[in-house]
Amino acid sequence: MFQRHPQNPLIGPQDAAPSQPDFEVIGTFNAGVTTFGGETILLVRVAERPLKDPKQPDFAPIPTLAGDGTLHVRVLRRDDPDYDTADSRFVIHRPTGELLLTSMSHLRLARSRDGIHFMLGQTPWMKPTLSEEAFGVEDARITRVDDTFYVNYTAVSPRGISTGLVSTRDFAQFERHGIIFPPANRDVTIFPQRINGQYVCYHRPMPGMFGGYNIWMAESPDLVHWGNHRVVLASQAGGWEAGRVGGGAPPLWTEAGWLSIYHAADPQDRYCLGAFLTAHDDPARVIGRTHEPILSPEAPYEVEGFFGNVVFTCGALLDGDRLKLYYGAADETIALAEASLADVLAALG
Amino acid sequence: MFQRHPQNPLIGPQDAAPSQPDFEVIGTFNAGVTTFGGETILLVRVAERPLKDPKQPDFAPIPTLAGDGTLHVRVLRRDDPDYDTADSRFVIHRPTGELLLTSMSHLRLARSRDGIHFMLGQTPWMKPTLSEEAFGVEDARITRVDDTFYVNYTAVSPRGISTGLVSTRDFAQFERHGIIFPPANRDVTIFPQRINGQYVCYHRPMPGMFGGYNIWMAESPDLVHWGNHRVVLASQAGGWEAGRVGGGAPPLWTEAGWLSIYHAADPQDRYCLGAFLTAHDDPARVIGRTHEPILSPEAPYEVEGFFGNVVFTCGALLDGDRLKLYYGAADETIALAEASLADVLAALG
Repeated sequence: MFQRHPQNPLIGPQDAAPSQPDFEVIGTFNAGVTTFGGETILLVRVAERPLKDPKQPDFAPIPTLAGDGTLHVRVLRRDDPDYDTADSRFVIHRPTGELLLTSMSHLRLARSRDGIHFMLGQTPWMKPTLSEEAFGVEDARITRVDDTFYVNYTAVSPRGISTGLVSTRDFAQFERHGIIFPPANRDVTIFPQRINGQYVCYHRPMPGMFGGYNIWMAESPDLVHWGNHRVVLASQAGGWEAGRVGGGAPPLWTEAGWLSIYHAADPQDRYCLGAFLTAHDDPARVIGRTHEPILSPEAPYEVEGFFGNVVFTCGALLDGDRLKLYYGAADETIALAEASLADVLAALG
Repeated sequence: MFQRHPQNPLIGPQDAAPSQPDFEVIGTFNAGVTTFGGETILLVRVAERPLKDPKQPDFAPIPTLAGDGTLHVRVLRRDDPDYDTADSRFVIHRPTGELLLTSMSHLRLARSRDGIHFMLGQTPWMKPTLSEEAFGVEDARITRVDDTFYVNYTAVSPRGISTGLVSTRDFAQFERHGIIFPPANRDVTIFPQRINGQYVCYHRPMPGMFGGYNIWMAESPDLVHWGNHRVVLASQAGGWEAGRVGGGAPPLWTEAGWLSIYHAADPQDRYCLGAFLTAHDDPARVIGRTHEPILSPEAPYEVEGFFGNVVFTCGALLDGDRLKLYYGAADETIALAEASLADVLAALG
């Protein structure tokens, strides 16, 4: 149903200068998407790590934000049995359960006239600042409400994974609105208008002891304070979404209902994309969902990379019947796939 | 510093009729506290379980709420190796990680003229109703704001542990405000007035993969929608609060600052109580905390019981210098301890 763009991936780590000379960029992926001033705008997650010292290949440098806002690099011995380094994305200190990320992300702006050839900014658009962002800011989603663009993002720190919000009218300056969902919660997708008098979003809590990784909704009078939380979409047992489901692109208005492209992972952390449709006047009422993935990791740049077997979207654009889906591939690059909206809606059961 | 009341425990399971004839009450504990109409009011957590069939002692009956709002009883074989029954509070289905509670709780009203001898209602004040409450409602906290009493409580379901809110003006009828904190989050304590124009609460997220069990704060324009989440109090490594900290009694105004009595547990799940003080105009600024417990499980009814070695408060009353602390003992009974406020404040370092 989706056609991958022949120039995929559109943006990769080689396109981004590091934010400081002793760092290297290892990922440009999971971008929020909108249009502004006749251009396609991406807010790209840029993941960096400290350059390794070639004289000390057995040491892993770990970036963290200090209390004074400066970046520090902590160096771990790779063969230290106290550290579990099996996952490329993080290191776990076995005795305490402490988790450290192997990279730190910030958000960077990319612009394009044709939606295919992007100019990626060479400095951060938003850097981690709050103590709740000490491990970085990730995975922006952009929702336009009237003339304001609301950008929610994942904030990671030693206190867990939460969701922050900023807003901008021009992508030059932004205003901070703090942390809108406390740990552990990410994959927030905000609707572009009020429904029954309230703003609405989907969010994905990650409860500790039990409860599963399901999509919830919440309501807000102002996009900053959220309440009336309810379960909307639970993961289906077995198969491609047995591990988790989470919001992807902010909901798109269609004549059939609100269309959400979401991600799902199986217990082996293979990430695919699906879609669900909710009623115009009731975002808690699911009126259709895909029972098979609409996009699965198959292209070489999706199967291989920093964290392989991942397709993950943070935003899509709808132009008549054309659905343009921007997505992160293998936690490393940004790619584009297009489909007919009618075909996607026809796949909903 | 605290003197236990000689008539402790004040309320026990023998004081409560079950809500239906085939159930037994196994706990009356963790009560929210306030005063109304010249009486001390408790909203008591009443935990019940289905009566065991004496002909089938090897089967454990598990209560759950069905989609149509009726109670169902699921029966498990005690010797089924698929179920982990090591903790008295819950059963885990090993192959799926599914968790079931061994009891279901509702809230019941108790009234007293002297704060010691209580009349416990013989029917539920609030029963689980929402799908997010399918495993019960627990651990009420009461905050009076002007003439309205806001009651937040823990809502438990197969989707996790969340926090709900209702309000009442007379304790006869209440209005529901839905789920205010999605999973996993409980131990919410709401301030009795706006601070800098916003309502404020403390809450205790339980993130999954990492982050620890720490006390956060949030702000709200209306007590229903919450945002601007920030970490306030982290657990101290080692010792009595190495496992977790969480809100206890809603904050009490004192001349020295806002006084919060909180609970902490060590990795062996021994629950003690401590206190911290925050600035009048900034509930995020901790200006003192106790470094040793102010109450530890020592009395027989605290050490032994449904879940032993637990003292846990959901509310306290302040009358001049007298601090009256109501608390749950061993997840089974309600007890009272009193202290001089000056002594508690003197213990803050």
